[in-house]
Amino acid sequence: MSDHRAAIEYATTHVDDFLANLRSLVNIPSVSTSPEYETDMRRAADKVSELFTRVGLEHIQVLPTAGHPIVYADWLHAGPEKPTVLVYGHYDVQPADPLELWESAPFEPEVRGDFLFGRGASDMKGQVVAVLSALEAIRATDGSYPLNFRFLVEGEEEIGSPHLKPFIEAHREMLSCDISLNPDAGMVAADVPTLVYALRGLAFFELRIYGPEHDLHSGVFGGIVHNPAKALSEVIAGLHDANGTVTVPGFYDKVRPLSEEERAELARLPMDDGYYLAQTGAPRLWGEAGFTPTERIGARPTLEINGLLSGFTGNGTKTVLPAYAMAKFSTRLVADQQPDEIHQLFKEYFARIIPPTVRWELIYYGGGAACATDPHQPAALAMRAALEQAWGIRPVLKREGGSVPVVADIQKLLGADTVLPGFGLPDDRIHSPNERLHLPTWQKGIQALVYFFYRYADQEGN
Amino acid sequence: MSDHRAAIEYATTHVDDFLANLRSLVNIPSVSTSPEYETDMRRAADKVSELFTRVGLEHIQVLPTAGHPIVYADWLHAGPEKPTVLVYGHYDVQPADPLELWESAPFEPEVRGDFLFGRGASDMKGQVVAVLSALEAIRATDGSYPLNFRFLVEGEEEIGSPHLKPFIEAHREMLSCDISLNPDAGMVAADVPTLVYALRGLAFFELRIYGPEHDLHSGVFGGIVHNPAKALSEVIAGLHDANGTVTVPGFYDKVRPLSEEERAELARLPMDDGYYLAQTGAPRLWGEAGFTPTERIGARPTLEINGLLSGFTGNGTKTVLPAYAMAKFSTRLVADQQPDEIHQLFKEYFARIIPPTVRWELIYYGGGAACATDPHQPAALAMRAALEQAWGIRPVLKREGGSVPVVADIQKLLGADTVLPGFGLPDDRIHSPNERLHLPTWQKGIQALVYFFYRYADQEGN
Repeated sequence: MSDHRAAIEYATTHVDDFLANLRSLVNIPSVSTSPEYETDMRRAADKVSELFTRVGLEHIQVLPTAGHPIVYADWLHAGPEKPTVLVYGHYDVQPADPLELWESAPFEPEVRGDFLFGRGASDMKGQVVAVLSALEAIRATDGSYPLNFRFLVEGEEEIGSPHLKPFIEAHREMLSCDISLNPDAGMVAADVPTLVYALRGLAFFELRIYGPEHDLHSGVFGGIVHNPAKALSEVIAGLHDANGTVTVPGFYDKVRPLSEEERAELARLPMDDGYYLAQTGAPRLWGEAGFTPTERIGARPTLEINGLLSGFTGNGTKTVLPAYAMAKFSTRLVADQQPDEIHQLFKEYFARIIPPTVRWELIYYGGGAACATDPHQPAALAMRAALEQAWGIRPVLKREGGSVPVVADIQKLLGADTVLPGFGLPDDRIHSPNERLHLPTWQKGIQALVYFFYRYADQEGN
Repeated sequence: MSDHRAAIEYATTHVDDFLANLRSLVNIPSVSTSPEYETDMRRAADKVSELFTRVGLEHIQVLPTAGHPIVYADWLHAGPEKPTVLVYGHYDVQPADPLELWESAPFEPEVRGDFLFGRGASDMKGQVVAVLSALEAIRATDGSYPLNFRFLVEGEEEIGSPHLKPFIEAHREMLSCDISLNPDAGMVAADVPTLVYALRGLAFFELRIYGPEHDLHSGVFGGIVHNPAKALSEVIAGLHDANGTVTVPGFYDKVRPLSEEERAELARLPMDDGYYLAQTGAPRLWGEAGFTPTERIGARPTLEINGLLSGFTGNGTKTVLPAYAMAKFSTRLVADQQPDEIHQLFKEYFARIIPPTVRWELIYYGGGAACATDPHQPAALAMRAALEQAWGIRPVLKREGGSVPVVADIQKLLGADTVLPGFGLPDDRIHSPNERLHLPTWQKGIQALVYFFYRYADQEGN
């Protein structure tokens, strides 16, 4: 085994340097959802390239797509007998709004206590920088890497990666690998090392309801036309029944049932009702009857309203009967649900249930398929051992509620499975105001990645 | 009878001057709903004072309230044997948003074709200026007025007149009158002179639903907490049953049933389903089963959603499970429903039906009682004759769907009934983008007011 103790020592003593790299990346408002940040998106891609340069990666390219560019780099000098790891990451982030709820500016990263606060600190600029920090520690102490590396860092994950799949299709050779490392998963808690082995898929929609041709006076016309805000509410209210089950016909048809063994495994996760009440601050839990919270999040498809808008929403009152109402919603899917099929089901359902008193339109923003990876393949075993080495306890195996569609794409297009670590915590407030990264966990994560690279190289290459 | 032909002639030949006065008032963005327009509110009050000065009114005062000021003026030289008319008006307007839907700037009044476009052109700056134009025509040709006048022009009608009732209470003597003239009603169509004799009341609410303590990632937490946007939709969807009837227990308890005679009278209005479909542009009509559209608007209480807001509403997608959702809604009331009692019913209803999976709060913005006036009292008869003289056809009697709470307040506090003409049309887009005033109708309205003042003076004073 190579001299990994020196690399661990380096990683421990250079945390401030790693943190400076992370801050320089969080500093760039690379919000992919809105065209106004296009320049910042390019700046973020360039910053990733710069960080690649610092750890000696080669063939660094900012490659255009029809949307935001993809950053590629590689280092292929470990020898053909050593495996090639394709590291996936994304440099884009969610919008920061509502801005007024942030305690420090979202794109001026600030350390308070054990946390770095800033949009993207946890999701996932911190995770990308963790991998690069582990590489830096190895390179600084070992002079070279024990594995071959390729990096693929995209800028459209937060908008559903619309151009990633065609990119991978067009660059199969450039991206060929034995395993993919995707540190976009997370941990159950700071003291519970976690390996995620399944991910939910996703489909995004917007339902627009149109009533009268223009806003009407609610007194002069109230009571004779179907208020679009009301019609929309009726549709949304009807999307679940009293048991929390989605009512759209066919929605559950492709859902793989949970095995008894899997339910037993999930029951061992340290996440009961009290845990989720504390994490969310909700007054009570809610959801599909007959399933535990971890089952509902990891192994059941769900439907969430992401936004509502209609009429007058300022201070005070306005006696308006609005012409228009819209809801943004998304479904989280589990294997073997397909987003396009789900879109079709919603279209048919709405056509059947929305009354002729209003007009409607369903926008489909795309999505990604659900997937499951093999927790027993060599890289997964190496990661489980590396996590145990860093934390001193055996990691738990978890099905993740979030979506990482690239995992299914890489399985399908490159024939490579993915290992899904990640050092974010459930209360990192990703996608919310005051997103943060727990720095002690992040530091252990960097060490775990150092262990992983050496272990996987030893396991596979000998 | 005084020389009213000269006044009518003057009114016909001075339309451009009247229009210039109106434009100078519409030019001021006197939006009462938002604190940012406070200076403009004062400017509008001063402009009203200036217009009062031009027609020789006296004791002009801009009187402070706890909110926006009230403009008072009088002219009391017609003699004690002549009746005193209290003219009510308001100088405030609704917000102009959504601004992007206006074809000309809302506060830069523009004549296009037969219309003056601008916020407040119809509701009700145009109506206030119509009364002042009739006065100018009489004064210019007759040297004096046939009646005593008092004017009360407030700045808070569009926010429910929160300080008007205490103001009237505190100034009963100053406001004493035989009849009130309130030209804030409207006409059925440009060729159908209309006298309104009943008005709906109003109560404004905002329901706020709180779920998790902060926005959550919809993947990581989707499926285990009650989404507030969904909980809100469930409440709204349940506010009406399948017959369009409001489900809140007790809501209809105080509603006076329509007599057969009244139903027959309302059936004579030239407003069938086709009329309302054309006015609203809605694909179909909707509403409480068992009542015609004119009955639903004039004689039945209704409930409208005025606005919805939750989560992410920008372009594209955001995988958020929002912490909060709100709906603004209002009820239109008919005699003898009381807004405070309705508020109590909603509070009790929500306490019973909103589940403990969310927290909620009901904001009550106040309202006004419904009322009915006597269409057979002398001023109403004079107005009916004046309308017939101006249009050449008998006016229709109508129950109005909108609310003018001051009518009930003046009945109660000053013991005076109100005459409710008004020269706005149903398609004036009041409260909506591209509000407009139909100028030929407005000009006839000014003539009708001239006729009315002379007729009422003759009828009452001799």
